[in-house]
Amino acid sequence: MSPGTGQLSGLVAATFTPLTPQGELNLPVIGPYVDYLLEKQGVRSVFVNGTTGEGCSFSLEERKQLAEEWCRQGKGKLDQVIVHVGCLNVKDSQELARHAASVGADAIAVISPSFFKPTNADALKMFLKEVASAAPELPFYYYHLPSMTGVNLEAREILEGIENQIPSFRGLKFSGTDLRDLGQCVCYCRPHGWSLLYGVDEHLLGAVVLGVNGAVGSTYNYLGNIMNSMLTAFEKGDIAQARNLQFKMQEVITFAVSLGFSLPMNKQLMSEFSGLHMGPPRLPLLPCPPDHAKSIAQKLRDVLAEQ
Amino acid sequence: MSPGTGQLSGLVAATFTPLTPQGELNLPVIGPYVDYLLEKQGVRSVFVNGTTGEGCSFSLEERKQLAEEWCRQGKGKLDQVIVHVGCLNVKDSQELARHAASVGADAIAVISPSFFKPTNADALKMFLKEVASAAPELPFYYYHLPSMTGVNLEAREILEGIENQIPSFRGLKFSGTDLRDLGQCVCYCRPHGWSLLYGVDEHLLGAVVLGVNGAVGSTYNYLGNIMNSMLTAFEKGDIAQARNLQFKMQEVITFAVSLGFSLPMNKQLMSEFSGLHMGPPRLPLLPCPPDHAKSIAQKLRDVLAEQ
Amino acid sequence: MSPGTGQLSGLVAATFTPLTPQGELNLPVIGPYVDYLLEKQGVRSVFVNGTTGEGCSFSLEERKQLAEEWCRQGKGKLDQVIVHVGCLNVKDSQELARHAASVGADAIAVISPSFFKPTNADALKMFLKEVASAAPELPFYYYHLPSMTGVNLEAREILEGIENQIPSFRGLKFSGTDLRDLGQCVCYCRPHGWSLLYGVDEHLLGAVVLGVNGAVGSTYNYLGNIMNSMLTAFEKGDIAQARNLQFKMQEVITFAVSLGFSLPMNKQLMSEFSGLHMGPPRLPLLPCPPDHAKSIAQKLRDVLAEQ
Amino acid sequence: MSPGTGQLSGLVAATFTPLTPQGELNLPVIGPYVDYLLEKQGVRSVFVNGTTGEGCSFSLEERKQLAEEWCRQGKGKLDQVIVHVGCLNVKDSQELARHAASVGADAIAVISPSFFKPTNADALKMFLKEVASAAPELPFYYYHLPSMTGVNLEAREILEGIENQIPSFRGLKFSGTDLRDLGQCVCYCRPHGWSLLYGVDEHLLGAVVLGVNGAVGSTYNYLGNIMNSMLTAFEKGDIAQARNLQFKMQEVITFAVSLGFSLPMNKQLMSEFSGLHMGPPRLPLLPCPPDHAKSIAQKLRDVLAEQ
Repeated sequence: MSPGTGQLSGLVAATFTPLTPQGELNLPVIGPYVDYLLEKQGVRSVFVNGTTGEGCSFSLEERKQLAEEWCRQGKGKLDQVIVHVGCLNVKDSQELARHAASVGADAIAVISPSFFKPTNADALKMFLKEVASAAPELPFYYYHLPSMTGVNLEAREILEGIENQIPSFRGLKFSGTDLRDLGQCVCYCRPHGWSLLYGVDEHLLGAVVLGVNGAVGSTYNYLGNIMNSMLTAFEKGDIAQARNLQFKMQEVITFAVSLGFSLPMNKQLMSEFSGLHMGPPRLPLLPCPPDHAKSIAQKLRDVLAEQ
Repeated sequence: MSPGTGQLSGLVAATFTPLTPQGELNLPVIGPYVDYLLEKQGVRSVFVNGTTGEGCSFSLEERKQLAEEWCRQGKGKLDQVIVHVGCLNVKDSQELARHAASVGADAIAVISPSFFKPTNADALKMFLKEVASAAPELPFYYYHLPSMTGVNLEAREILEGIENQIPSFRGLKFSGTDLRDLGQCVCYCRPHGWSLLYGVDEHLLGAVVLGVNGAVGSTYNYLGNIMNSMLTAFEKGDIAQARNLQFKMQEVITFAVSLGFSLPMNKQLMSEFSGLHMGPPRLPLLPCPPDHAKSIAQKLRDVLAEQ
Repeated sequence: MSPGTGQLSGLVAATFTPLTPQGELNLPVIGPYVDYLLEKQGVRSVFVNGTTGEGCSFSLEERKQLAEEWCRQGKGKLDQVIVHVGCLNVKDSQELARHAASVGADAIAVISPSFFKPTNADALKMFLKEVASAAPELPFYYYHLPSMTGVNLEAREILEGIENQIPSFRGLKFSGTDLRDLGQCVCYCRPHGWSLLYGVDEHLLGAVVLGVNGAVGSTYNYLGNIMNSMLTAFEKGDIAQARNLQFKMQEVITFAVSLGFSLPMNKQLMSEFSGLHMGPPRLPLLPCPPDHAKSIAQKLRDVLAEQ
Repeated sequence: MSPGTGQLSGLVAATFTPLTPQGELNLPVIGPYVDYLLEKQGVRSVFVNGTTGEGCSFSLEERKQLAEEWCRQGKGKLDQVIVHVGCLNVKDSQELARHAASVGADAIAVISPSFFKPTNADALKMFLKEVASAAPELPFYYYHLPSMTGVNLEAREILEGIENQIPSFRGLKFSGTDLRDLGQCVCYCRPHGWSLLYGVDEHLLGAVVLGVNGAVGSTYNYLGNIMNSMLTAFEKGDIAQARNLQFKMQEVITFAVSLGFSLPMNKQLMSEFSGLHMGPPRLPLLPCPPDHAKSIAQKLRDVLAEQ
């Protein structure tokens, strides 16, 4: 981890957004949230207002308040606070980018717009460039999430020549399952010293072997310890142990999938594991049945207790 | 057409948003645009800031300026100005709904959020209800566009009991191809006196025979005359003539599809047909090759010249 | 209906394949099945071994037995027996085409192969041509079913110039929801005197207004009377009555959809309505819960009893 | 590799089917094909009549001739000849299974039917069981290829309890990108001593780290050497070298994708690399432009020549 260069490594928690029972921002939870990540999960960086954080379900003003509070609480404690500033339109994204710079974010990230979809890599790069130009001093990350955006451009195509368009470009969050595209991105990022952070938590080992720098994900909020152990085992060359830990994590997620894994369930899981009050999701998402999170938490305890 | 009741009929133009060559709002075009629709196309109502208008590609402030200008220019001339206020989040949609009421819109419409998708009809209705409640005096329309949103809930399911949740509910824009669902919506809307406006222009005759009240679409900006003639022929019982006119329109669209029909092409077609300057689209959409619009315009002239 | 020209009109039943409780062919049911269609449903033509008939779930030998029995029982009674001979490969399809000719079929039809998908219209036309050439004396129909095959080529593209490649070409079964493509096919078929048979039963009125010649579908096995009445009302210019009947049919199908409408449920509905024993479906389809068919049948009775 | 137990390991070539220029079987190529795999690519097992082999584009009689010739030519040379016997219907699959046993195949494999899709794991297992029961003495593999079949059941669900239904079950070919499902399959297969063969060639390293036994794929026909070197590097703990080789392979495939990678192109590549005459594909596939294979072959030489 070298914050001075803007390069990331290790696990990054894609944070949930704490809400009151009435569905309004619950900013006072963020301080304890930071401490929980550091002390209980060994997670030292956060990705704020992304998919897990329901960023697009909040107004610009709310997104600014969230970014500001995460930066304030993380200051001197977290290695990196990356603020996701992607919106469906350029102007809002630019406003959020400028704001992120003003409150001391370490980096910004942008997802592709998904209602109107860029039809080729050039269109997406032009969009990203416009946003990046509003905060040229902040390290910029492209957030690749084809399953949610429906934008099926290869990430490698987005990278080609992007250093000429976006001087602040520093890497990408790759949340896809195409390991060919991922591998080609690793090859492209490495000589530039860019970070490649993988974003499909339950596939992580398959990306680590291809040389990613780290990972951003929602489950690292509460499974950070296990996944940190997995990364350590891999680095030591203990493939069998790394595999074993990934399998345990997969078993828990598979159980959650059988109950209908969703963002609301995931958010409730965080409340269950951390004891912090994450509250409900925002519309159009609905809260999930409360007993589901309890049975998944029990599943995790069972899995970890196995030899 | 009975504006007093909020009920719509006939053709409604889903308006394009005029931009300067630099991509900023070009509000002075809106006045002549209104006159063009009335005088050259026989179109007396507009649907503003929807998909055709690239609503989600503008900031809230820009959307407000557009809504205001359309209401101002349409006052005393147009029958209805419907303002689309849907956003990915409730709060922004509510702000736009309040604004629409304040500038004299005749009605508002809301599309389903599409990044986080409602997983059932209840979730979507709760979202719509929250927005409608911010402008309870304005007739409210649900905008059903499953091909773009990826929300595959049946529109009929959304309608069930919605009168209890949204007292201002007055109808829907149905932009899907499921004629079974459409027919079931007609059955539900009729006793309530609600409007069902069809939104797939090139399928219109197949919806008219099922009893829709009217149509909202982008092509009525420049093919309003032809489609008005089709509606008149159908009302007179001249099915052969109605069919013939729908076929001519389909032939033009099929030709456009062969050139890669897209929103930017469509916008350019409007410039070509009307002589008004629509300008480029906003990112992430890119302008289309200029010669395409010219050849489609020629195709239309050829088709109309045939016996 | 003019059998001599190979042109079709009116309703065609896409037949179910009667099986014994053990899942083997139950050929003796076919004779009474023919009588039921003629006497109780007013349906005078059949489409055999298609999707409804689970054609691809049978061996070539079984498909031949079915084709032969339908031709034998239909002789002198039915107007047309169309045998579907499409397979994933050309050689099997050719063998079935030759056999259909040998047992006196009135026409053959072929669907696109769907495991390997033709990537353009030329590839599909070459496939169809090879099959047609094995039975050049039989009227040939292309069976367009993009939702099942995943082949999203426009039907109109398939038609372009096909008369030069397949002299026996006489029309198509269009089982899609793209009314633009449908309309363009009507325009192409009409001057050739070809038949365009629509295949989405619950959308039929929307296709009739565009000028199709008739319809092929599974529900005409048991809702033939209602849909014949709808066609008659339309021909008389009584749009309101045609619409009303289509709505009733849609209401029944919508209710079935709410119970998980599927081919096995559809097959069981036929047993329920006709009193004939259709038996179970073949693997990989599983029989549906028996009470579902009973409640749908009751729904139909209720709907028909309404004013 | 332990043929006596039916367990597989290492690379398995999914074979192309050699055709004459006229598109008929070219059986005499199979002998030299076996020698090429052994001598030039270090590949000692084959998967016959699968997707790469265009199995479903041939008649049953042709599939039998191919299976027989591969068994005859492989006898005493290859470790394993696995014959794919999956069809859209049970009876044809059973006939092919019995035939495979009669000609000395080492194992059979079956893909899910894909026109009618099994709606749950039980339906698919019942289908597989019926086929397996026709050749109970042959090791049986399930072939999981969701991207082509559209059957999105998790492979792990198919495995659950399958040992009770199919005593001859010995493993699966997993050609999907869901590494969570893959990992859960590894956990299930290991205690049974079953083989898990991965089928997405360009993702192989990501599956190897999760503990698969081997791989089946089309590119091993001509890139077997490189991929064998990758497997060896991984086994030695040289992750950097394994990664480097996977990247080179990915670079070649990415180049091919940019030219429109397809089965016909892949088949032509094999002709280009091996000097054997694979011939054209069968309809509905069309031959690819001949210069594409040449430029991909050149790309491979360039990539291998890099440091």
